[in-house]
Amino acid sequence: MEHLSFLDLIRDDLERVENLLRERPPGQHEAIGVAVDHLVDGGGKRVRPALVLLSTHFCGADVDKAIFAAAAVELLHTATLIHDDLIDGSLMRRGAQTLNAHWSPGATVLAGDYVFAHAAHLASRSGSTLLMQCFSETLMTICNGEVRQMFDGHRNQTSREEYEQRIHAKTASLISMSAQAGAILAQVETEKREALKIYGEQLGLVFQIVDDVLDFVADERVLGKPVGSDLRQGLVTLPVLLFLEDNPDHPAVCQALEGNSSDKVAREAIQAIAGSPAIERALAAAQEHADQAKAALSELSHSSYRAALLALVDFTVRRRF
Amino acid sequence: MEHLSFLDLIRDDLERVENLLRERPPGQHEAIGVAVDHLVDGGGKRVRPALVLLSTHFCGADVDKAIFAAAAVELLHTATLIHDDLIDGSLMRRGAQTLNAHWSPGATVLAGDYVFAHAAHLASRSGSTLLMQCFSETLMTICNGEVRQMFDGHRNQTSREEYEQRIHAKTASLISMSAQAGAILAQVETEKREALKIYGEQLGLVFQIVDDVLDFVADERVLGKPVGSDLRQGLVTLPVLLFLEDNPDHPAVCQALEGNSSDKVAREAIQAIAGSPAIERALAAAQEHADQAKAALSELSHSSYRAALLALVDFTVRRRF
Repeated sequence: MEHLSFLDLIRDDLERVENLLRERPPGQHEAIGVAVDHLVDGGGKRVRPALVLLSTHFCGADVDKAIFAAAAVELLHTATLIHDDLIDGSLMRRGAQTLNAHWSPGATVLAGDYVFAHAAHLASRSGSTLLMQCFSETLMTICNGEVRQMFDGHRNQTSREEYEQRIHAKTASLISMSAQAGAILAQVETEKREALKIYGEQLGLVFQIVDDVLDFVADERVLGKPVGSDLRQGLVTLPVLLFLEDNPDHPAVCQALEGNSSDKVAREAIQAIAGSPAIERALAAAQEHADQAKAALSELSHSSYRAALLALVDFTVRRRF
Repeated sequence: MEHLSFLDLIRDDLERVENLLRERPPGQHEAIGVAVDHLVDGGGKRVRPALVLLSTHFCGADVDKAIFAAAAVELLHTATLIHDDLIDGSLMRRGAQTLNAHWSPGATVLAGDYVFAHAAHLASRSGSTLLMQCFSETLMTICNGEVRQMFDGHRNQTSREEYEQRIHAKTASLISMSAQAGAILAQVETEKREALKIYGEQLGLVFQIVDDVLDFVADERVLGKPVGSDLRQGLVTLPVLLFLEDNPDHPAVCQALEGNSSDKVAREAIQAIAGSPAIERALAAAQEHADQAKAALSELSHSSYRAALLALVDFTVRRRF
């Protein structure tokens, strides 16, 4: 996200967030420090901190406090990735080895827990118990969504509604919380916070749908992990759902979703979906959510920060990495 | 702890904490609810909530806020147990199956994460960002201690200092935080908070040393898990340390600490330690910490709550379950 002009407004703030992310709390074990640095340096697009900061300026909240909230949401996201990769057995993320690829499961669990704690500590330094409440509710939503997927997921039988519920919990909840952060810190009127909440939820859906599309069509080198990872794990995302609407009995796709298909069958399934109209249809769905995200802000006062929030939506729906 | 007279002062408050522990946040997946109820019903002595409440009354803090802090520390403790049992592969705790005994590792990780989030949410409802900071710092200390043990633990070569550092992180840090909760909520003068901090740290050391002794000498039915669990996992606790001072080359004990010894050798090692003077010496060490815990409160104003805090120390050093 380095060359995006809509981030110019918060360039200095983002720099401060980077410094916070690299801060090592007193007594932190060297191994955790190295692991977290590796994850933080590994990049990520810093969408969540950017949202916290744009929301902060847009709502006139205290930037010094928001810096902590911005670092907190990024570390919360990092912690969930540590545990997710362990649970999914993923070995690569953003072009680098995951922690569980070279640490024991036990050490990986503890590292994730530590990062959760560090994130909560940063959130508390924002000085807002309301923000802390929202922060912990969001983590509950994320975990709850994953437990639901684990216990109730029926692979082939996922409905569009279940998919949206899942990506709401997994991605949109934290992006929405980030978008609301400024409104929470500045204690603005309910309408403005509600507008930012809807904006964030819709933006989060865009973000995840585009991710799910890129999982099929992106260049592996750009993606930083094998193409079709979700399908290989039997996870039904929007491109798969839409493909199955037109091809309910496609042999390779159905086999791949059953799990334990050969690599050849998985590749065949991925190619079939990547080359189908399901991709464009999924991107059209993302565009619809993008339009709703922008509409949510239409009643709010115009400012350069509102413009940046709108530009972030356009960037998210168009991004190809 | 039901028939302990020093808890009479906070009986109603503890009842309110129990209700909070059984509250199901909106949207919580049924499976998580059942799992958490199982853990919460499984008992535990509620030492941490009792400390929060005694500290609250002793410092004149707002009891309505403290209820949340008390439930938060108990759930934080519960969450760490969920992950610990998974990491250690423990199948029994307090006479009941652990969560990982019947859930997949992934689901167990998520359940623990959810309980962390719920604990953080309860802590935020106390309305004190200072408490939230202390809460998250404590979780960092706990995780950090476990990571240190995992990366730097050298079984046979554990020193007394390393042992105390480890049980400080594992147990005393959260017990100390609980003892300070009232001082934090009431924002009392530094001296009083510092006294409660030292009291809690020393009480926490007593608590863990007695636990480590009971792991050798308790009745399995009362203990609710196999005797000698720590030794079987190669963990050097104070009774082992003191035993090795007198018997540095004891074959069964040395073999057991190497791990993967036969059950026969492990039983022999456990019996050797349980029948040795190391047990009494460990209890004497616990008594020393108990004396220091009580001394920490000696300068503070006398009250029925101070008396209860002192009685809790006596109970902890004498308990046999």
